[in-house]
Amino acid sequence: MAPKYAPSLRARLPPVAFLLQVAFIVIFAFCVKIEHNGREKNQNFINSYANFQDIHVMLFLGFGFLGTFLVRYAFSSSAFNLLVAAMAVQWATILNGFLLSHSSDRVIRIQLKSLVDAELCAASTLVAMGTIHGKTNPVQLLIFALIEVTGFVLNQWIIQTLFQPRQETQWLYSMVLINIFGALFGMMTSCLLFRSKIQQKFEKEKVSRRTGLFAMFGTLFLWMFWPSLNAALEPDISAKSNTYLSLAVSAVTAMAVSALSSSKGKINLVHVQSSMLAGGIAVGAVVTSSPAPWIAMTIGFCASLLSALGFRYMKDHMLFAFDCHDTLGVLCAHAVPGILGWFAQLILRLMSISHSTIAFQFVLHYVCILLITVFVSLVMGTITGILLKCSLWKPQRDNKRYDDQAYWEFPHLLEDK
Amino acid sequence: MAPKYAPSLRARLPPVAFLLQVAFIVIFAFCVKIEHNGREKNQNFINSYANFQDIHVMLFLGFGFLGTFLVRYAFSSSAFNLLVAAMAVQWATILNGFLLSHSSDRVIRIQLKSLVDAELCAASTLVAMGTIHGKTNPVQLLIFALIEVTGFVLNQWIIQTLFQPRQETQWLYSMVLINIFGALFGMMTSCLLFRSKIQQKFEKEKVSRRTGLFAMFGTLFLWMFWPSLNAALEPDISAKSNTYLSLAVSAVTAMAVSALSSSKGKINLVHVQSSMLAGGIAVGAVVTSSPAPWIAMTIGFCASLLSALGFRYMKDHMLFAFDCHDTLGVLCAHAVPGILGWFAQLILRLMSISHSTIAFQFVLHYVCILLITVFVSLVMGTITGILLKCSLWKPQRDNKRYDDQAYWEFPHLLEDK
Amino acid sequence: MAPKYAPSLRARLPPVAFLLQVAFIVIFAFCVKIEHNGREKNQNFINSYANFQDIHVMLFLGFGFLGTFLVRYAFSSSAFNLLVAAMAVQWATILNGFLLSHSSDRVIRIQLKSLVDAELCAASTLVAMGTIHGKTNPVQLLIFALIEVTGFVLNQWIIQTLFQPRQETQWLYSMVLINIFGALFGMMTSCLLFRSKIQQKFEKEKVSRRTGLFAMFGTLFLWMFWPSLNAALEPDISAKSNTYLSLAVSAVTAMAVSALSSSKGKINLVHVQSSMLAGGIAVGAVVTSSPAPWIAMTIGFCASLLSALGFRYMKDHMLFAFDCHDTLGVLCAHAVPGILGWFAQLILRLMSISHSTIAFQFVLHYVCILLITVFVSLVMGTITGILLKCSLWKPQRDNKRYDDQAYWEFPHLLEDK
Repeated sequence: MAPKYAPSLRARLPPVAFLLQVAFIVIFAFCVKIEHNGREKNQNFINSYANFQDIHVMLFLGFGFLGTFLVRYAFSSSAFNLLVAAMAVQWATILNGFLLSHSSDRVIRIQLKSLVDAELCAASTLVAMGTIHGKTNPVQLLIFALIEVTGFVLNQWIIQTLFQPRQETQWLYSMVLINIFGALFGMMTSCLLFRSKIQQKFEKEKVSRRTGLFAMFGTLFLWMFWPSLNAALEPDISAKSNTYLSLAVSAVTAMAVSALSSSKGKINLVHVQSSMLAGGIAVGAVVTSSPAPWIAMTIGFCASLLSALGFRYMKDHMLFAFDCHDTLGVLCAHAVPGILGWFAQLILRLMSISHSTIAFQFVLHYVCILLITVFVSLVMGTITGILLKCSLWKPQRDNKRYDDQAYWEFPHLLEDK
Repeated sequence: MAPKYAPSLRARLPPVAFLLQVAFIVIFAFCVKIEHNGREKNQNFINSYANFQDIHVMLFLGFGFLGTFLVRYAFSSSAFNLLVAAMAVQWATILNGFLLSHSSDRVIRIQLKSLVDAELCAASTLVAMGTIHGKTNPVQLLIFALIEVTGFVLNQWIIQTLFQPRQETQWLYSMVLINIFGALFGMMTSCLLFRSKIQQKFEKEKVSRRTGLFAMFGTLFLWMFWPSLNAALEPDISAKSNTYLSLAVSAVTAMAVSALSSSKGKINLVHVQSSMLAGGIAVGAVVTSSPAPWIAMTIGFCASLLSALGFRYMKDHMLFAFDCHDTLGVLCAHAVPGILGWFAQLILRLMSISHSTIAFQFVLHYVCILLITVFVSLVMGTITGILLKCSLWKPQRDNKRYDDQAYWEFPHLLEDK
Repeated sequence: MAPKYAPSLRARLPPVAFLLQVAFIVIFAFCVKIEHNGREKNQNFINSYANFQDIHVMLFLGFGFLGTFLVRYAFSSSAFNLLVAAMAVQWATILNGFLLSHSSDRVIRIQLKSLVDAELCAASTLVAMGTIHGKTNPVQLLIFALIEVTGFVLNQWIIQTLFQPRQETQWLYSMVLINIFGALFGMMTSCLLFRSKIQQKFEKEKVSRRTGLFAMFGTLFLWMFWPSLNAALEPDISAKSNTYLSLAVSAVTAMAVSALSSSKGKINLVHVQSSMLAGGIAVGAVVTSSPAPWIAMTIGFCASLLSALGFRYMKDHMLFAFDCHDTLGVLCAHAVPGILGWFAQLILRLMSISHSTIAFQFVLHYVCILLITVFVSLVMGTITGILLKCSLWKPQRDNKRYDDQAYWEFPHLLEDK
């Protein structure tokens, strides 16, 4: 049991973390200011602060506990999520400020919106991390996160630069790019890192009564606050209530499909936890169109259906067919509903455009954005995968996967009765 | 251990869930619109959104984890709570729109308030579910929830129709009807369903170190956010701070009574968890009168005292005297403080009315509303009990009670150290 | 295992709790009114209510679960935290009203701000409680809390009375006094209570996979909502985003230092949990100066560094050198970052004052306030320590420390699989 031969991170994690952290502080010292708002703006700020806190909870608590279902990896799930998110948020603030803001001087002005934007970038990283969850050490995770954030902001910058005049790029910030980009980036990295290594099912990849409940808890926070996430940049009753209804349908559908697709009629808690978020992800793509509630509910129904079926039938096939192991099932949980929502948005938009030339132009742009995103995510994922293979980072031994013992001090345990 | 003979739900849960879900989507397609607010209303919307989120957390997280103390029923507690609440909210939105709104056309307009109203109806269902917690399968729970919501809305409609001209019915929405209606409805159903079956104390009805803490966690969310619930329809400093103070007194009293009534001076965590909410429930009935803080604190003290004593002495007697088994002790936790608050409100109102004729009229109406609520809840509960006895729903075997194994896929477990 | 000889609290806890509770209700009846705001103020009230709820969650959930890492003391951690906080809030409301408000008549007017102030006093008590966590019974905790709140309010009153004309006392409310006062008070009490008794390391003072995660959960709520705490009395974007950035740096630094200072390069979860809050505590002292983000980040970095090193090297030395046992490491977690923040604020203020006489005067006042706080906390802590030694309170036997069995009813447990 004792991981005697797990490589010590003493000479890797502290230097990398300190170096990055000091570098960030130096950059902040030279380039970042806080934008003090006047009295009037302050009002809106206080309002949106509650919304921001919801997203904050999703990021640090929700995503952190989502992965705690692994029976021996709960400390790492929650704490490395915090480590990575805390780094990603700082890096994203800097990158967003340099690439995406339009200030004339070289000064980044922080408002509450900057922090929300940074958290959305970090969310994309946390989605991507799900694919390599439990198979990499924290140093690799930090490198992974920095490249992912860079890729995500770069992708936004490319899209903004190419399509800005059309003014239709407002939805490029939508939740869906977060999920599609993150999931594809992560899959690519995972494929390259673990090719033909993970064939057998790991004993420690299982769920227990205790850990399943901790994961339920994280999932519920994601599920409950998803309306705030979708309404982060569209503070409208329509965005919130559509997401709310879609998530309700999603939860019901996920459980029904899980019971239906099991030979004994039993529900798989881990499948349900991931699929029940599908409605929120898919509807995130269409909130700017403010569809009728039943359309949001239908999208939630379809997204959850596809996602739950994917968990039951596709996840294992992916492993055998493509040597691609995906711990949290990010492909089914995020990419599938994301792409579904993307097409739903395309159809909704087309129905509101009467002129065929404009419609054609719109489709062209729309498809281009998806293709660019897919392309950038796959390329950056490939780079990351190759970089992380390097033995410099002291990668985990295969038999120490999904085990906290490699990274955490445990006392000689008292019997935990 | 393996529940080889637990009836499979494959042919029951998915069809029922899909059927209901598709039906709801169709009804939404024809009858529900989102009410887009103007600029001014939007402001209030954003404010009350934070309040709404508190109630949302109570409903899906608080109630869900309240029942996780059962040592082997934690997955079902949290997940079936989610399933039922997600369904109940949709059904309540539809029913509230048709029966209680006063629109001229047949269109239901959704605002944030509609969602709050729907969540209050769902809360009533979740209270009622506490009585049959762990003894029914999810299909029975869905049927149970639909009838309970129907009954609750019907009760409101009857009261509104009969007493509308008096304009004193504003408090009919108060939290107290939720608790009284839910608790009585649930007790009636439980009595009919399990008459003379549950005599012995089940081994699995116990609490463990682990599950007690998960339940503590759910209870704390209910306890912390109860001020938001009581102020849902009365956004006033008085409602919030009175509830806050009453809950503080309640928590202290619950622990003191639990220690006092134990022969060894030890506290029972499950009793404390349920009784410490009594202050919030009871004060919910009087918030419209804006009493002085000490009155709210006294009500909280009495409610918690009665509730904690009820848990220690009444719960088991109910089982022997009336064959009525109540898993979460809903009668002591919700009905007793609810009725106490109801009478407190009666007294507070009477003290503010000087004229005897008006006072008499008021008492008459007030008592009528309570009697109607009791009557409707008992009748609907009886109907539900008879309906759920039907073997069509493949009811649980008695020896599989309070066990997740009947509904959830468990891997062959790794030793959970 | 069965604590047959643990003294029963039946004759102690209920009488003390009832007595105090009834006394509080009586005081409230004669002296406390709710201040109903007009329409305009109501707006601000609703806004700050969301902020208040964050602090509420920190107090009752965050602090309560922070101490649950002790493998057999989780019920007591969460429930006694609730008991003590509920009492402390009531007592602080009364004391704050009498000593610190400037109303002409003897009536205390409750607003939302009163509740926030009361919760800040209670937070100071909960910090102090960390030192004696697991070593005292709930009756001792109640006495401890009442004296601590009295001391904390008294200290504020002294400072306000002495330095009021200077108008520089606005920062006396800052989070830092809470942490410094609480930590020193608790250390003094702990020293006197347990002198030369706790030499050996207790088996039950360890963490387990399960309890570490519950503690992570409480810590995360503290970590996530600390910006709301620091901005409680300074609702400004600067306070919030500085705290946010400082906490992010803090979390990264805590993990890096913990890995660096371990011989095997492994991270200690309990150390990380406490140190990652250091950034929030230290920055709490400087929010009124609105420093640039990089200054806040640097303060967070230093605070977390010192705190994490303190946990690794100082905690055990304190025990051997001064016979001073500190269960939650409050000295490293709260006092050290608090004093660091205090000096950071001194330097920041001095840099903004050009005139040397004013600067000298400022330093004098500033140092006086710290010395008064230290003096009052140590004196009150000594009194409390002597008082609690009294055998009237039936103190815990040494071998029953850190064990829920002494206070809570446990069923004969089903194997918790």
